Amino acid sequence: MNGDIRNLKFCYIGGGSRNWAWVFMKDLCFEKEIGGTIFLYDIDMEAARANETLGNRLMEAHNPGQFTFTAESSLHKALEGSDFVFISILPGDFEEMAVDVHAPEQYGIYQSVGDTVGPGGLNRALRTVPLFQEIAAAVKAWAPDAWVLNYTNPMSVCTRTLYEVFPRIKAFGCCHEVFGTQDLLIKMLAWEGLVQEGEVTRSGLTTEVAGINHFTWITAASWKNIDLFPHYQKFAEAFGECGFKAAGGNWFNSYFSSGERVKFDLFKRYGLIAAAGDRHLAEFCPSSWYLKNPAWAEGWQFSLTPVSWRIAQREELREKSRAYRGGAAIPPPETSGEEGIRQIKALLGLGNLVTNVNLPNTAQFPLFPAGAVVETNAFFSRDSVRPLVSGGLPNPLRNLVLQHVWNQEEIVRAAVARDLEAAFRVFLNDPQLRGLDRDRAGDLFKEMTAKTLPPALGYKMPWRNQ
Amino acid sequence: MNGDIRNLKFCYIGGGSRNWAWVFMKDLCFEKEIGGTIFLYDIDMEAARANETLGNRLMEAHNPGQFTFTAESSLHKALEGSDFVFISILPGDFEEMAVDVHAPEQYGIYQSVGDTVGPGGLNRALRTVPLFQEIAAAVKAWAPDAWVLNYTNPMSVCTRTLYEVFPRIKAFGCCHEVFGTQDLLIKMLAWEGLVQEGEVTRSGLTTEVAGINHFTWITAASWKNIDLFPHYQKFAEAFGECGFKAAGGNWFNSYFSSGERVKFDLFKRYGLIAAAGDRHLAEFCPSSWYLKNPAWAEGWQFSLTPVSWRIAQREELREKSRAYRGGAAIPPPETSGEEGIRQIKALLGLGNLVTNVNLPNTAQFPLFPAGAVVETNAFFSRDSVRPLVSGGLPNPLRNLVLQHVWNQEEIVRAAVARDLEAAFRVFLNDPQLRGLDRDRAGDLFKEMTAKTLPPALGYKMPWRNQ
Amino acid sequence: MNGDIRNLKFCYIGGGSRNWAWVFMKDLCFEKEIGGTIFLYDIDMEAARANETLGNRLMEAHNPGQFTFTAESSLHKALEGSDFVFISILPGDFEEMAVDVHAPEQYGIYQSVGDTVGPGGLNRALRTVPLFQEIAAAVKAWAPDAWVLNYTNPMSVCTRTLYEVFPRIKAFGCCHEVFGTQDLLIKMLAWEGLVQEGEVTRSGLTTEVAGINHFTWITAASWKNIDLFPHYQKFAEAFGECGFKAAGGNWFNSYFSSGERVKFDLFKRYGLIAAAGDRHLAEFCPSSWYLKNPAWAEGWQFSLTPVSWRIAQREELREKSRAYRGGAAIPPPETSGEEGIRQIKALLGLGNLVTNVNLPNTAQFPLFPAGAVVETNAFFSRDSVRPLVSGGLPNPLRNLVLQHVWNQEEIVRAAVARDLEAAFRVFLNDPQLRGLDRDRAGDLFKEMTAKTLPPALGYKMPWRNQ
Amino acid sequence: MNGDIRNLKFCYIGGGSRNWAWVFMKDLCFEKEIGGTIFLYDIDMEAARANETLGNRLMEAHNPGQFTFTAESSLHKALEGSDFVFISILPGDFEEMAVDVHAPEQYGIYQSVGDTVGPGGLNRALRTVPLFQEIAAAVKAWAPDAWVLNYTNPMSVCTRTLYEVFPRIKAFGCCHEVFGTQDLLIKMLAWEGLVQEGEVTRSGLTTEVAGINHFTWITAASWKNIDLFPHYQKFAEAFGECGFKAAGGNWFNSYFSSGERVKFDLFKRYGLIAAAGDRHLAEFCPSSWYLKNPAWAEGWQFSLTPVSWRIAQREELREKSRAYRGGAAIPPPETSGEEGIRQIKALLGLGNLVTNVNLPNTAQFPLFPAGAVVETNAFFSRDSVRPLVSGGLPNPLRNLVLQHVWNQEEIVRAAVARDLEAAFRVFLNDPQLRGLDRDRAGDLFKEMTAKTLPPALGYKMPWRNQ
Repeated sequence: MNGDIRNLKFCYIGGGSRNWAWVFMKDLCFEKEIGGTIFLYDIDMEAARANETLGNRLMEAHNPGQFTFTAESSLHKALEGSDFVFISILPGDFEEMAVDVHAPEQYGIYQSVGDTVGPGGLNRALRTVPLFQEIAAAVKAWAPDAWVLNYTNPMSVCTRTLYEVFPRIKAFGCCHEVFGTQDLLIKMLAWEGLVQEGEVTRSGLTTEVAGINHFTWITAASWKNIDLFPHYQKFAEAFGECGFKAAGGNWFNSYFSSGERVKFDLFKRYGLIAAAGDRHLAEFCPSSWYLKNPAWAEGWQFSLTPVSWRIAQREELREKSRAYRGGAAIPPPETSGEEGIRQIKALLGLGNLVTNVNLPNTAQFPLFPAGAVVETNAFFSRDSVRPLVSGGLPNPLRNLVLQHVWNQEEIVRAAVARDLEAAFRVFLNDPQLRGLDRDRAGDLFKEMTAKTLPPALGYKMPWRNQ
Repeated sequence: MNGDIRNLKFCYIGGGSRNWAWVFMKDLCFEKEIGGTIFLYDIDMEAARANETLGNRLMEAHNPGQFTFTAESSLHKALEGSDFVFISILPGDFEEMAVDVHAPEQYGIYQSVGDTVGPGGLNRALRTVPLFQEIAAAVKAWAPDAWVLNYTNPMSVCTRTLYEVFPRIKAFGCCHEVFGTQDLLIKMLAWEGLVQEGEVTRSGLTTEVAGINHFTWITAASWKNIDLFPHYQKFAEAFGECGFKAAGGNWFNSYFSSGERVKFDLFKRYGLIAAAGDRHLAEFCPSSWYLKNPAWAEGWQFSLTPVSWRIAQREELREKSRAYRGGAAIPPPETSGEEGIRQIKALLGLGNLVTNVNLPNTAQFPLFPAGAVVETNAFFSRDSVRPLVSGGLPNPLRNLVLQHVWNQEEIVRAAVARDLEAAFRVFLNDPQLRGLDRDRAGDLFKEMTAKTLPPALGYKMPWRNQ
Repeated sequence: MNGDIRNLKFCYIGGGSRNWAWVFMKDLCFEKEIGGTIFLYDIDMEAARANETLGNRLMEAHNPGQFTFTAESSLHKALEGSDFVFISILPGDFEEMAVDVHAPEQYGIYQSVGDTVGPGGLNRALRTVPLFQEIAAAVKAWAPDAWVLNYTNPMSVCTRTLYEVFPRIKAFGCCHEVFGTQDLLIKMLAWEGLVQEGEVTRSGLTTEVAGINHFTWITAASWKNIDLFPHYQKFAEAFGECGFKAAGGNWFNSYFSSGERVKFDLFKRYGLIAAAGDRHLAEFCPSSWYLKNPAWAEGWQFSLTPVSWRIAQREELREKSRAYRGGAAIPPPETSGEEGIRQIKALLGLGNLVTNVNLPNTAQFPLFPAGAVVETNAFFSRDSVRPLVSGGLPNPLRNLVLQHVWNQEEIVRAAVARDLEAAFRVFLNDPQLRGLDRDRAGDLFKEMTAKTLPPALGYKMPWRNQ
Repeated sequence: MNGDIRNLKFCYIGGGSRNWAWVFMKDLCFEKEIGGTIFLYDIDMEAARANETLGNRLMEAHNPGQFTFTAESSLHKALEGSDFVFISILPGDFEEMAVDVHAPEQYGIYQSVGDTVGPGGLNRALRTVPLFQEIAAAVKAWAPDAWVLNYTNPMSVCTRTLYEVFPRIKAFGCCHEVFGTQDLLIKMLAWEGLVQEGEVTRSGLTTEVAGINHFTWITAASWKNIDLFPHYQKFAEAFGECGFKAAGGNWFNSYFSSGERVKFDLFKRYGLIAAAGDRHLAEFCPSSWYLKNPAWAEGWQFSLTPVSWRIAQREELREKSRAYRGGAAIPPPETSGEEGIRQIKALLGLGNLVTNVNLPNTAQFPLFPAGAVVETNAFFSRDSVRPLVSGGLPNPLRNLVLQHVWNQEEIVRAAVARDLEAAFRVFLNDPQLRGLDRDRAGDLFKEMTAKTLPPALGYKMPWRNQ
C-alpha cells in the first residue's frame, strides 16, 4: 500500500457491466490524483471488450494518461497483484431473476424487487453464494492483500460469503440506498425553507446508521447544529397520507421512485428513519403490511419492478454499447455521487472519510451475532476501515431486523454446504412466506430451485426431474 | 441456610390457590426429612384460611408434626425471614382472562391458551408485571436471602420482573410442561415394546433442554445407553398424520391433551423434540401454521381452552374447598411428580439434582441476550442453582424462538415503564398478530387494555373513556 | 443541544486551576463561533475569583463579548442547566501527593509520576473516587444532559466513577499524552528529511489508538499514503541506546521530557508504539524493567518527578495569579494544541472530528471487560461520541494492559464500597508491588491510607490510631 | 455410541506408561458392566508390550473375559474406530525435564514442579504442542467421534491444542489435584470431630470449582446441609502458621505432600479454597510470595521435586515392569479414586455424573476468553459433557489467573506457528520471570530451547549452534 498511487492495478469482476461500470468510468474522468490500469474480467468477454473501448475513449477525451482499461479473460491474470478489486456481477441471467420475482406471484406473494430477501432474494442467494465462493478463493490465491469492494446483491449474503471462505479478506459492501434517504433529508430542508435547492449536499449532513443492507436505519441526523429528527417528524406527518412528490420525479413514472409512504409509516411505527427505497423496505416486513397485492402496493405509492422491464433496458444498453464500440458519440462525463473513488482514495491515505458500509459485525452492532454482515458507519483511512460502534436499534425494531440477519447467516451456511433442506427452513422463516402452508411453500421452493439452480452448482435436487 | 431443616419457614404467595397449593399439600404428606411452617398469603383470605384448614387436616392424617399451615394476611409477616417463597397467583380474574383469550377472536385470532404469548399473553403480562414488581420489592425488603420458586404465568415475564427489580434475588421458575414430553418419550418406549408400562420413570431418562418456557426443546435424549432420537423419528412418522392416542386419555376429552401432531410436525420441520403441550407450542408459531381457526386446530388435534370452562372448574373447586373446611372427607395424599420438593431439598443440601428450570441467561444459552429468562437444565445443590451450558438451538429454530425472547424482554421493560406505546410495538411483532392491519391491531390493543388494566396499575390510557 | 451556540453555559469544576484553566482561557481567545458564560467552581474560591478576573481580562483584550467568566461558590448553581462541564481538580493537596509518591521509596519502590497506577496511583484513587461520586450525583441532579469533559487523574478511575454513579452520563476523559507521541512522529519525519520542521501538524497524521490512559498504544500510523511503522522501526533502532534528544528540550532539564528510550524498548518488545511519556509508561511495567531505582531510571533517560518541585511550581503560579488579579500584565493568548474546544464544537455540530478519548468500553476494545474505561479513537459529531472499533492489542501486550484494567475496575468498586480490604488486594496485584512481601506491603498500605484519607471520606481504618 | 458396551475399543496413547496405565489397569479389575479391547500405543514398544502382559495377567486373575490388552505399534490401527482414547505421554524424556526444572535455578528461579507454568512449563509446552498437533490430526482422521481423555501436562495447553487442530473433537482433560483438596476437606471434618475417619468420601461432598488446571479454586463447598467455608476459615487459622500434618503422610517425607500453608495463605488473601497441591499453586504466583529460594519454600512447607528423583523412580518401575513380564507376582488390584472409568460409563449412558474437568471455555467461565481451556464442573451423560455455568472468580483473583490464561493461549499459538519470538514474549510475561532482566531472560530462554527442542520439531533457532 505504499506503492505508486499513479500506477495502481484494479480488477473489475463483472467488467462487462453496463450499469455500475459506466457510472464508474464517468466518475473516473474527473480523478487526477491517482492512476493505473483497470482489468475488466467478465464471463461475457464481448461486453468486457466493449467496455474497454468505451473506457479508453472516455479517458482519451477527458482525462488522458490517467487510467487504462484492459479486457482480460483470465481471472488469475486480472486479479494477480491487484490493489483494488470491484465485484459487480449479475448472478445468472434475467431469466432466473424472472423466476425469483414472478414465480411466487402464483402463490400470492408479490415482490417489489426480489433480490435481497423473500423468496426471490433467498433463491438468488442460492445461486450467488457458489460464485462468491469461487471469487473469494481466487482473491485468496492471487490478491490476498487487495481491498475488495462488492456491489452485487444480495449484498449481505455476498459479502458474508467472501469472509466465510477467506476470513482475512479486506472486503466491504457498497450500496447507495442510504444516500437516497440523505437526499430526501435535504429535500425536506428545502421544503421547510431552511435551505435553497442545491445549497446542501449529502456530505454536509451527519447521519448515524445501523441496520442491514436495504433495511438500514438512520438513528441520528443533523445538519450543522440542527437535529433533523423533529423536522422529519413534521415532514412524515405532512406527507404520511398523501405521499411526497419530489420535484425531479414521480413515483408512478419510475420503478425506483416512490411516495415515501412506507418510510413515513415505519417512522410512525418505530421512530427512526428507514434509509432505503420503499420498494426495498417493504420486502423486509410481513406481506400484510405493504405487499398484500399489487393494488395495495400502489396505495402505498411504490412499484413492483417487472423483470420484463429489466430485459428491455438491457437490450437498450446493449445497443448503446455496440454503438460506442462502433464509434458513436460517447456519453458525457459526470459525477455520480457514488463513493467508490473517495473510499479508494481514503484507503490510499488521500483523505480520511466516514461513511456507511457493509462489514461483518466485529463489535459495531451490539446484540447482533458476530460475523453477520451489517451496515453501519465506518472510518476509512490508509489501509484501514474501522467501523464505529453504533447505538444499535431499539428492541422491537432490532427484533424485526434480527430475524433477517439470522436468515442471512443460515442461507449462506446452507448454500456453502449445498444443503437445500436447510435452505428451505430459512425460506419458511422469511416474513413474506410465513403465511403460506408448509406444502405450498415446498412446491414453490421446488419450482424456483429447479428452474434456476444449474446442476453444475452441485445442489442435490431429487425434484428436478419430476 | 445452615439453619434447622426441621424448622423451616415457607411463604406461599397465592396461598389460597386450589390447584398448585393442593398438589403441593398432597406431596408434603410424604416428606419426612424436612419440616416447618407454611404461611399462606392471599388477597383472598377466605381461600387462604380454607387451605390452612385443609393443609393441617392432611398433615394430621398423614404426616403429623411435620408441617403447619398458617393463613397470614400481612405479606410482610408472611415473608419475613422465610427460607423459601412460592409464587402461584392468578393475575386479575377469569373475567380478564376471558378478554385475553376471546377478544382477539373477533379479529380472527384464535388462541389455545392465551397466557404466554400472542395478544392474550402480552396483555396478561401488562397486568402481571406490576404485581411482580411489588412482590420482588417485598422479597428484597423482608426475605432477601430466600429462594423464590415462581409458578405463575407468563413464566418468563414474571421471573424476569423479579430480577429486574431485585437483581440479587435467588429466584427460578418451575413448569411441568417438559415433564409431559418426557412422559411421552416413555410411552414411546412402551409402544416400541422396549419397556413395560411403568417400568421407567421420568428420572430414568436424560434429556438436554434449551428454549423458553412453553416453547422448550429437547436437543438430546437418552435412556440408559440408548439414543432416543432415532426412535422418536420413527414414532413421529408413525403418528404424524393420525395423531397419537395415549392409553390414559384422549385429546378431544380434555383441553390439556392432544394428538401430539403439532409436536410431530415441528420435529419434521426442525429435527428437535418440542417439549410442551401442543396447545402451548401452537401459539408461538405463525397463526397460519396451526391456529388459522378452530377447525384447523381440531385438524391438528388440540383444543382451544375456553375460559368458561376455567370458570366452571373454579366453582367446582370452591365448592370442594368449602366442604373440606366444613369437615367433609379430605382427598387422599398422592405424589404428583412435580419437582418443587426435590428442588427445595437439593437447595438444603439433601441430594443434588439436575432438572430444567427458568433462569435469566447468564451464559447457558449461547447467542441469546444476557438476562432474558430461558429454560435449560440446571444443577441444584446446597444453596446453589447452576445452569448447564446448553448447546443452544440451530439457526432457523433459534430465530423462531429469539423473536419471542426479545418480545418478552421488551414487554417487561414496557410494563415496568407503564409505556403502552412501547407495549403496542411488541404486540405488532408477535407472530399471531403479524397478519393484522396496523389499525385493526390498534383497535384490539385498545379494547383489551381498556377492559383489563385497572387504573390503579398506573398505565395512561387516553382511550379508556372513549 | 439545538440551543443558542453563542449563549452556552459552561461549568468548570476546579475552576481555580492555574494549569488547565489558564491553557483553556488562552485557547478561548481565538474562538469566534461559539460563546457563553463559564462558571468557575472551586473549593478554593480565592483561586476561582482570581481566574474570573484573569479570564475576563483576557477576553476583553483579545475576544471581547464572546465569553464571560464568573466564579460561583454553589456547585448547584454552577452546574444547573450547563451545556458542558469540565472537571479538572486536584484530589487532596500536594502533601497527600508527597505520600503517594515518596512513602513507597522507603520500601524500595520508585515512581516517576505516582498518579495513575502503582502505590501512588491506587492511593490517589481511594481519595478521588469519593469526590467523583459527589460530582456525578450533582451532574445527575442538575445537568443530566450536559457533556462532561474530565481532565483529572487517575483518568480511567475518575471517568469510570462518573459512569458507575450515573450510567447515562455523557462523559469522556481527555488527555494530551497521545498528542506528545504524535509530535514525536513528526520529529521523526523531520529527522528523516521527509518534511521540514513545522510542515506537518498532528492533525495531518492518522493514528489508530488502543489502550488505557497513560498506557496507550498506536497500532497503525500514517502520513498521507506513507505507513509510518517501517520508519519508526529505523528510528527506534537509531536512538534505542543513546536516546533521542529533541531540538527544543532535553530530558534532564525537564521532568516531563525523556530520551524516549522506554518507548523504543517497548517497541522492541511488542512491535507497537507506546503513546505516552516514558515516565508514565514505566510505571505500568514490572519495576525491574525501568524503575529499579533512581539511577536505573536515569540510565533509561527519564526523571522521577519530586513533589517538592510541584509545590515550588504551585507557589510560583499562585504568585502570578495574585499579580494578574492585582493588575499586572496578563499573559499573551496562545493556542495549546489541546482538543477541548474542537471537541465541544464538534458536539455542537460545528465540524466532525476523530480523536482519541477515554470512554467506557461498549465494544471498541475486543476482549476487554465491558464498562472499563479505555482509550481509543472516537468520532465526534453533533451531540454524539461514537468510539471506533479498534483492533485491540496482540496477546502478550493485552495481557500486560489487562491486569491494570481489572485493577482499575476493582479499585473503583473497592473505593465506592469504602472497602480497604478489597483495595489492598488490588495493591498486591500491581506490578510495582509484586516484589514486596505481603507484610511489608501491608505496612506501606496502612501508612499511605492513614496519612492521606481523611475520616470524612468514610473509610474504616483501625490502624489510623496505631 | 449405541454400540455394544461389552465390546468397546479403547486406544491408549502412551500405553507403555508405568504410572497412569497401572492405576487404570488396577481400577479395571473391578469393572463388570463394560468390556472390550485396549490398544496400547507407545513410541517405546517394549514398555507397551510389558503393559500388555501385565494388563492381561491382571484381567485373568481378577476380571476374566472383561478386557483384553494389545500392544500396537501403528497409531492408525490403534486409533481407528475407537470409542475412547486416552492420552498420557511424557513429552521428551527426563533429561529435557531436568532442563525445564533446573536450568532456571542458575538464574535464581526455583520451581517446585516445573511442568505447568513458569520457565519449565512454558518450555515443556513448546515441545508438547507439536506432539498434540499430531495426535489431534490422527484422531480427526481415524477416530473423529471418539471421546478423548487427556492426562498429559501441561494440561490446559495440551487440551487446547487438540481443539485448535480439530475443533469438533470430543476431548477433555482429567486431573486429580482437586480430589486431593476434597480429601483435605474430609480430614478437616474429622479434625473437627464432625465425622469419623473414612465415614465420608469425596463423592459425599459438593464443591463448586472454577479456575485453570493446577490453579483451580473451590468457590463453594458443602457436606449435607453444612456450608464448609466457615469450617475452613477456622481450619486455616489453626494451621496457617504451623502447617497441617496429615495422619497418613508428612510433607518432608514426600515430594507430593505439604503442610498446606500456601493453600491457607491464599485463603487469607482471597477468601477461596485453592484446589491443588501447594507445589503447583506456588508456581502460579509471583516468585517473591512462596518460591524466593529453597529455604523459603521449606519455610512454607513444600518441596522442590528434583528430576533426579523422577529418574530414580523410573528405574525402579522399569525393573518392576520387567519382573512382571518375566512372571513375577503382579500387584494386587485396587481402586484409585480416579474418575476415568466413571466418566466413561457416564458417557455410555450408565450413570450421570457431575465432576470437574478441563474444557474450552464456551460460556462456563464468565469474563474469560472463549476457547481457552478452563477447569470447572461439568455434567456427564450419554455422549455428552456439559459444563456448568460457574460463578467465575472475584476480580483480584481472576486477574491473577487471567494472566496465565492469556499466556497459555499465546504459547499454544506461538508453538503451533513455531514462532519462538512470540514464545519469548510469553516467557517475559510469566510472573516467575518478571523479575529477570530482559537480557538474562533471553539467555535462559535460548539455553532452555536449544537444549530441549530437537530440530525435527521445526523451530528456527539461530542460537542453537552458538
